[in-house]
Amino acid sequence: MPALFKRLLFQVGPQPNERTFTLSSVSNDGHYISLRPFVKPHGDSESAFPFEWAFAGTNETVKVKDLGDGVVAQDYNFWLDTNVYLNIPNTHRGEINTTWKDWDSGCVEETGSVNPFGPDKESVSFRELWQPVDPSREDLVIVSPNNETFKSNAKSVVLKVTDEAYDGLVIIVGRWVQGFLSKKNQNTVEGLNFIRLLEKDSGKFESLLSYGKDVKRIPQSYENLKKGSTVTIDGLNWEVIEYHA
Amino acid sequence: MPALFKRLLFQVGPQPNERTFTLSSVSNDGHYISLRPFVKPHGDSESAFPFEWAFAGTNETVKVKDLGDGVVAQDYNFWLDTNVYLNIPNTHRGEINTTWKDWDSGCVEETGSVNPFGPDKESVSFRELWQPVDPSREDLVIVSPNNETFKSNAKSVVLKVTDEAYDGLVIIVGRWVQGFLSKKNQNTVEGLNFIRLLEKDSGKFESLLSYGKDVKRIPQSYENLKKGSTVTIDGLNWEVIEYHA
Repeated sequence: MPALFKRLLFQVGPQPNERTFTLSSVSNDGHYISLRPFVKPHGDSESAFPFEWAFAGTNETVKVKDLGDGVVAQDYNFWLDTNVYLNIPNTHRGEINTTWKDWDSGCVEETGSVNPFGPDKESVSFRELWQPVDPSREDLVIVSPNNETFKSNAKSVVLKVTDEAYDGLVIIVGRWVQGFLSKKNQNTVEGLNFIRLLEKDSGKFESLLSYGKDVKRIPQSYENLKKGSTVTIDGLNWEVIEYHA
Repeated sequence: MPALFKRLLFQVGPQPNERTFTLSSVSNDGHYISLRPFVKPHGDSESAFPFEWAFAGTNETVKVKDLGDGVVAQDYNFWLDTNVYLNIPNTHRGEINTTWKDWDSGCVEETGSVNPFGPDKESVSFRELWQPVDPSREDLVIVSPNNETFKSNAKSVVLKVTDEAYDGLVIIVGRWVQGFLSKKNQNTVEGLNFIRLLEKDSGKFESLLSYGKDVKRIPQSYENLKKGSTVTIDGLNWEVIEYHA
């Protein structure tokens, strides 16, 4: 089923914090995107690119293994990883192995380690805590606080760029849309574009986040879609690779 | 303003977790109650008393000091503290000093230390993370995820037992009600009673938590109240000590 997670906490070292409004969208078929904009960017670098990180991928870029007892292993080989795209020094390259553990409260703890200094150097452990929210609601509504089963029947639609010169993915789960568009081989912030939209009761899509000079080439209305069809926005072609109404 | 907080995380030692569905209610005038029921009680002891902890107090039992930059010191001398009431070994006695820090995400981190082995013995540090939710909503709706100012105009009503043989407090913030009733000098779980109610769209109050053999002596409907009036439930008198409609 489609899912939407709000991050509550990020921890490397002894002191946790949460400086971003991070949402991770997971489609019914397992495609995913996580946008991590700073709430209050500090300094010139964060103002120029106001994201802690962003990544995305199709379901071919993640291996999911249920270990039982509410524990799931997820191994990622991201398609988009802004640290890789921007060649940020001292950030991880290659597969990331993570473990997801359901807490009684309904939140999910993610732990893992990365190798920012290279695969044969010291690893760095991290922890994140995720709050599942109901993707079909206009508000961020906490689900399963008392361990009730939550089953979303929200819609799940995914579009993917087909043009050679770009990578791009848009994931719609329920009312929440997140998407990216990156220009291949540009490898600067000039090549990155992100959207986050929220479908209001009126049916209109409100922009919650819009970044990048090519952001208007990302689809921002979603009528008359069907699986396999192609949408052309400002000359850029996007294929509907998943459609669950 | 009245406030409702859902706890996201409790940490003593290296591993955080959250085994409870904890809500803390704070009235407009600063009276407070925190009920911390286990989601899945383990073993006989937790089944007999399925709470990690519960505490409550009037605004006379807490000192609040704004330290600026989103940091607030709160020093508690609880009125009800179930650890004290039940004489649980190796739990703190006396004032607890806590520090509350606003995170950019809208959550609030509480840190402090307790002295379970006595005031002159080693202290134990703890961390809790709190999600403010909108008390006027029937769902647990996350507020201020992007640091927007949240001002609740939810109602705030507080009732307090006046009979000599009992302590008791009920706090209504918006649609959410939490209350306790304890028999003085009983000092066993037999003397403790707790309620958590939620006012539905229909105006009816749904019971989310009901514990104790005297629980029916706690007011569970709240019509025709005004400040200073007294409500008698099954022979027990409760005074309305706060009323903001």
